[in-house]
Amino acid sequence: MDYQSILAEIEQEVFPLLERGKVANYIPALAEVNPKQFAMTITLFDGTQYSVGQADALFSIQSISKVFTFTLALKFYGTELYKRVGHEPSGNPFNSLVQLEYEKGKPRNPFINAGAINVTDALISHYGSAQVAYKEVLEFIRAISDEKSITSNDVVSASEMEHGFRNLALANLMKSFNNLDNRVADVVGTYFKHCAVEMNTKTLSRAMLYLANDGVDPISGQIYITASQSKRINAVMLTCGHYDASGDFAFNVGLPGKSGVGGGIVAVIPEKMGICVWSPGLNENGNSLVGTKALELFTTKTGLSIF
Amino acid sequence: MDYQSILAEIEQEVFPLLERGKVANYIPALAEVNPKQFAMTITLFDGTQYSVGQADALFSIQSISKVFTFTLALKFYGTELYKRVGHEPSGNPFNSLVQLEYEKGKPRNPFINAGAINVTDALISHYGSAQVAYKEVLEFIRAISDEKSITSNDVVSASEMEHGFRNLALANLMKSFNNLDNRVADVVGTYFKHCAVEMNTKTLSRAMLYLANDGVDPISGQIYITASQSKRINAVMLTCGHYDASGDFAFNVGLPGKSGVGGGIVAVIPEKMGICVWSPGLNENGNSLVGTKALELFTTKTGLSIF
Amino acid sequence: MDYQSILAEIEQEVFPLLERGKVANYIPALAEVNPKQFAMTITLFDGTQYSVGQADALFSIQSISKVFTFTLALKFYGTELYKRVGHEPSGNPFNSLVQLEYEKGKPRNPFINAGAINVTDALISHYGSAQVAYKEVLEFIRAISDEKSITSNDVVSASEMEHGFRNLALANLMKSFNNLDNRVADVVGTYFKHCAVEMNTKTLSRAMLYLANDGVDPISGQIYITASQSKRINAVMLTCGHYDASGDFAFNVGLPGKSGVGGGIVAVIPEKMGICVWSPGLNENGNSLVGTKALELFTTKTGLSIF
Amino acid sequence: MDYQSILAEIEQEVFPLLERGKVANYIPALAEVNPKQFAMTITLFDGTQYSVGQADALFSIQSISKVFTFTLALKFYGTELYKRVGHEPSGNPFNSLVQLEYEKGKPRNPFINAGAINVTDALISHYGSAQVAYKEVLEFIRAISDEKSITSNDVVSASEMEHGFRNLALANLMKSFNNLDNRVADVVGTYFKHCAVEMNTKTLSRAMLYLANDGVDPISGQIYITASQSKRINAVMLTCGHYDASGDFAFNVGLPGKSGVGGGIVAVIPEKMGICVWSPGLNENGNSLVGTKALELFTTKTGLSIF
Repeated sequence: MDYQSILAEIEQEVFPLLERGKVANYIPALAEVNPKQFAMTITLFDGTQYSVGQADALFSIQSISKVFTFTLALKFYGTELYKRVGHEPSGNPFNSLVQLEYEKGKPRNPFINAGAINVTDALISHYGSAQVAYKEVLEFIRAISDEKSITSNDVVSASEMEHGFRNLALANLMKSFNNLDNRVADVVGTYFKHCAVEMNTKTLSRAMLYLANDGVDPISGQIYITASQSKRINAVMLTCGHYDASGDFAFNVGLPGKSGVGGGIVAVIPEKMGICVWSPGLNENGNSLVGTKALELFTTKTGLSIF
Repeated sequence: MDYQSILAEIEQEVFPLLERGKVANYIPALAEVNPKQFAMTITLFDGTQYSVGQADALFSIQSISKVFTFTLALKFYGTELYKRVGHEPSGNPFNSLVQLEYEKGKPRNPFINAGAINVTDALISHYGSAQVAYKEVLEFIRAISDEKSITSNDVVSASEMEHGFRNLALANLMKSFNNLDNRVADVVGTYFKHCAVEMNTKTLSRAMLYLANDGVDPISGQIYITASQSKRINAVMLTCGHYDASGDFAFNVGLPGKSGVGGGIVAVIPEKMGICVWSPGLNENGNSLVGTKALELFTTKTGLSIF
Repeated sequence: MDYQSILAEIEQEVFPLLERGKVANYIPALAEVNPKQFAMTITLFDGTQYSVGQADALFSIQSISKVFTFTLALKFYGTELYKRVGHEPSGNPFNSLVQLEYEKGKPRNPFINAGAINVTDALISHYGSAQVAYKEVLEFIRAISDEKSITSNDVVSASEMEHGFRNLALANLMKSFNNLDNRVADVVGTYFKHCAVEMNTKTLSRAMLYLANDGVDPISGQIYITASQSKRINAVMLTCGHYDASGDFAFNVGLPGKSGVGGGIVAVIPEKMGICVWSPGLNENGNSLVGTKALELFTTKTGLSIF
Repeated sequence: MDYQSILAEIEQEVFPLLERGKVANYIPALAEVNPKQFAMTITLFDGTQYSVGQADALFSIQSISKVFTFTLALKFYGTELYKRVGHEPSGNPFNSLVQLEYEKGKPRNPFINAGAINVTDALISHYGSAQVAYKEVLEFIRAISDEKSITSNDVVSASEMEHGFRNLALANLMKSFNNLDNRVADVVGTYFKHCAVEMNTKTLSRAMLYLANDGVDPISGQIYITASQSKRINAVMLTCGHYDASGDFAFNVGLPGKSGVGGGIVAVIPEKMGICVWSPGLNENGNSLVGTKALELFTTKTGLSIF
């Protein structure tokens, strides 16, 4: 397939939509981003990349980091992990306390905020300290994306911490149900540092390859997780990867994926490629408006839905 | 692949679990079923079938009928259908009124009870009467399964109607929000008649072929719906097909599927086959306990997950 | 105290507010009422009445009927009644299904719709038929108000029935939890007939005297219920009598009371008097806007709050 | 009335119930209290006191402190206070986050935990610092109870803080909705110090007199709040003073009151007296089991309900 031409078509088709989305405005560092930006990259198993737009521009990966922390926690804890966090869609906004209270402090899945905070807590317990946990997650991200320069933006994470009262509420609620091992401030602080990692569509699409290839990096041959774990991460991305619009994404795009409030969306085509699209303007569900549309166009044009 | 041997292995492995599930007991007609029954059939695109167990035994398809009514409603209404019913996972039990009230009478998806009742209402409006709607849905089921003798069990549907107060509550609630066109008793009565259709694993796995083949029956060549509609039905089956355990099914089985309280589960492997498994004992989420396990074994043994 | 002057002052003070409320518009019979009407009557223990405004004008008592059905059910069932209906404030709108589902079909109190429907069901079981139950409740209302001509408006009750889908949903939900003995249509039909009884402020304030006098009619000497039952009905009126604004009414008026969507509000000053105020324009909580204000002025001017 | 004999009768009648309640066990300091203790005191307007049981024994006033902080906040803010906290019953447990989230961070009333934390925040803003706020509330309590030795137990408040994750969750949630001015740790810390104040039934019943006498201390003549404010505090105690059992308390006792998890309950008989009862064993709603029964017996024996 002529991927470059398809991407070029998509870029053209989504152009009129660039004004429609709204950038996240809950912290200044994100609110200042120019919404009229767009990039899309696909990375094949041999490392070939096709890109359009500002594919070198760095952006805050935000909730896409939840895929990486979930991967590591699953690797270390196996099915034991599901004692502390589930894998069901939530049917509620990403940061809702209601369901968390009804379900006695056990988050529905690792991709809502409470779930990712809980997974971060599990990693801190595994690694022995918040500092090591942060460092190891960052190393993992660098490894799977084959890019050693990746780092976290301290201004963004500090700003998140300053305005992160709802996440502190979620963490304290889990703590009140004995479903958080470490200090609330440490856990939430580490969580925010992972969210503030900055990447571009090239590195993020590259980083998805292990999930497209049953847990094994197809380029380096490195085995990160088992095939079964990899398939299950994809399943959770499909059912829970886009907050309260996960069904809509499965419906319209038909690929396992994960979005972040910074405007990035990653997606996986099993046995074929990793994808990343970025455009900072968000729709009403907090997912990139143009990014969602671009992925929908991609599966329509290529017929590469999993369904 | 030697499907017959794989099915035989599965039959043997699930045998010890047959005592664990509990048959649905909310109406006498279902409560009297012997729980220690099992059957599984796969149907390939050329019509070849592999079966184990009581693959000729008829059972009540119950909620599996929701796949067929959704297909017809989508065919006739297209995306207009989504004005009255969504396609998001509900995160709640299949018959919950809570979410329906909060979301002002619009059901989350066509596979929870409220959604299927709403879809039935749409079909009654389309066909002009409850009688015709019932008859046309039955004809559609007969066509896709290539079996003219299929019919509905009047004792079961009458018994459902007699005990169906919660479904009447759901229908009245939608009516109070002006999201139901026809008389409550007609809509719910027709819904129950579809649920009481009786089939076996052979006919049901055959009936899934159009969803494995982009809307086209691979044997007869008959075009039922568009490829896009077919993919989207599969997406909704994956995210919403098993009530509050849909994430778990996607996670452990990794296939689009739909379960019924009669113990049947259908599943689709895109571009390959239709599957049906049946065992009347249910797990705590109301899905066939052994059926779910058998499908999990099938994707593990064959590697045929969509992820 | 010069009650007549106080009422005259109140009439004058509320006059500018008469345009602010909105009449109930869910059925035509209520929607056509002129909102700019007002009446207020107090009835003392010796039968003396003081009135202002259109105190002879009949209006639909609607939810005020819940006080009378609760009285009879408590008389016949005693504390057994609390097995089927509670006496806690609901913290939710009067017709919410959410709480009813969470609490497994047991209504919070007899003054929300589900509770009053349940109480009507209890009365039908007691009297043996819907017809007799309706007739006996009407006779009770005639007795306590000493007015034989009181009757129910068939146009209103038929119209309610035609648009009463939410109440049918509530009744079916209770039925699904085995908390309703009789046929849903009979129970809801009888409930609507009680709601459609028409009275004026003179007869309604007279009808409250037994609750101001420990269950005994101070004029006729007739004993209706025990002192303890009477006090407890007053307590439930105080905590639950005004839907989701019950706290506000206790806070601002400080009297046990019950409002109806027809614009009437009854209140009780223990050991002193019965009160009824009527003005059809409602506030956002569904209580008479001017009626609430008039009662607030009355307790402020007379100092006759129970607190 | 011979109050001393009535109290003696009550003491005898509740004796067999002393074993039934369970002491609060969420912090060690409370869990170690002997549950078989009982005391009851009434204080008349001339200062006469009647007591039974261990009326000099100090106990943790806990949520009874919410009456005092509400009084001061109402005094300083007047009706402005209702912009940040409501006065409706919650229909939910005292520490629920669900309603707080649905209602966008505005607590239902000042007597649930979120409401009292919010009121504490208002007092800190008024007084300029957490230290001064704590000191002034303590001085107010000493003044109304005419007992200068009253103080807070630092072990209890430190222990509360160490286990207070749910209250921290509530405070952070309000903060995320911009409904908390000061630092979360300061507000919750001050709240816990008020809860840890220790008093006995003599001082607490004395402290209620201003609420029985329209805001004026009947002994000292000191005017604390207006008559209207006093009546309204009583109204909120009646509708919201006992968490999810407020309706039950109004129903069975019929007096404005407030309970604390330390086993104390205060109540007010307007124009007559202040009451305090104490017994550390709690019922399933978190209110003193024997205390509730004792108050019910008191209003039954004396006929002194407000209804």
